[in-house]
Amino acid sequence: MRDPRREPSGEKLAPKAVVGRVSLYLRQLESFQRQGHVTISSSQIGASLVINDAQVRKDLAFFGQFGYPGIGYRIEELIEALRRILGIDHVWPTALIGWGNLGRALLKYRGFHNRGFHIVALFDCDPKKVGQTHEGLTVQPTEALPQVAAALKIGLAILSVPADAAQRVADQVVLSGILGIMNFAPFPLIVPPTVSVVGVDLSVQLEHLAYKVQNAHGGGISQVG
Amino acid sequence: MRDPRREPSGEKLAPKAVVGRVSLYLRQLESFQRQGHVTISSSQIGASLVINDAQVRKDLAFFGQFGYPGIGYRIEELIEALRRILGIDHVWPTALIGWGNLGRALLKYRGFHNRGFHIVALFDCDPKKVGQTHEGLTVQPTEALPQVAAALKIGLAILSVPADAAQRVADQVVLSGILGIMNFAPFPLIVPPTVSVVGVDLSVQLEHLAYKVQNAHGGGISQVG
Repeated sequence: MRDPRREPSGEKLAPKAVVGRVSLYLRQLESFQRQGHVTISSSQIGASLVINDAQVRKDLAFFGQFGYPGIGYRIEELIEALRRILGIDHVWPTALIGWGNLGRALLKYRGFHNRGFHIVALFDCDPKKVGQTHEGLTVQPTEALPQVAAALKIGLAILSVPADAAQRVADQVVLSGILGIMNFAPFPLIVPPTVSVVGVDLSVQLEHLAYKVQNAHGGGISQVG
Repeated sequence: MRDPRREPSGEKLAPKAVVGRVSLYLRQLESFQRQGHVTISSSQIGASLVINDAQVRKDLAFFGQFGYPGIGYRIEELIEALRRILGIDHVWPTALIGWGNLGRALLKYRGFHNRGFHIVALFDCDPKKVGQTHEGLTVQPTEALPQVAAALKIGLAILSVPADAAQRVADQVVLSGILGIMNFAPFPLIVPPTVSVVGVDLSVQLEHLAYKVQNAHGGGISQVG
């Protein structure tokens, strides 16, 4: 058997930008598969995402050798490999902590459930919110986190709490043995190296948009000095 | 006068990751300024963000020469320069389109208003939502976008609409002369080159977290072939 497809051992983590693009490639591959395609080229993957084919090949090569000379990528095989690499070949029981407006929006965000992120428990510090029921889930006090996390095998926590509560709640999450935190508070969390954090500061992304609009039109930057 | 601080002409756009970090540096600088500091070093900026000082200097150097030998950065001057470079030295009147759960959460998201992104108009395609009033704003039909955008000088639009409506609504945004779109639909928008888009697919970010958790503990990746 020639040229077996290889994946690395996972020793070195890929940069955030690469992982983000791989998520997008996976969505495109799934779309091509639904349309009945069996194999695909890097330029076809890139075309609909406005990414050039060299970048697509380089990003995928970070995780192993998946292409076949003269054929391209076998879609089913690549989807399976990418899902395994991203860690979404299984369901992640997930806790949602912070039952404000953002928490309510996130519970209904279809994209999470579709990708295997199942919100199985809601938490809030506010006694007035504890006991409310939404989509079959009851808001529980944050103090219940350790026992609920253990009982439901919760692996990830989504923090949609105010900035001034974020670190305190993150500490409770860490003590519960949860290993991944998605943090919506515009506040960098301090956690042990065994716990992973992805921060989502929406105003940073809006600033990036402002930067692009401002500079695409040359109106904002002037010479200084 | 030696060594005047320089900024480039804005011809070349900085990569997304750099702009994202600059937004974080700006937040740190503002925090140092509130604490009474006047000058700061790259290692002080980086320390609280767990970014090394060479990276901080390299990121800032993309936008010009801001440091003074033996002094470091003058905080007030650097804050002013970064706010001008990011395009947040002025208010951005912003439209919020899509009055679902996410839209409601985003309207209350304090981070936007604090950074100069003022949501001044709400839109939805659903006649049942049109006419509702929230925080002093009335939900208007999407068809009213061109005239409202012109009247209120709207520069940016936040799209919190379902994926299957995103492109149609984006087309209306473009026709209204709005030059920047923040897209929450997990769907790449097609827009003219004069319009900038920043996509926020929250499931991509949760996949990145899954990837980090999975691979930090070596449980998920196995050799294939």
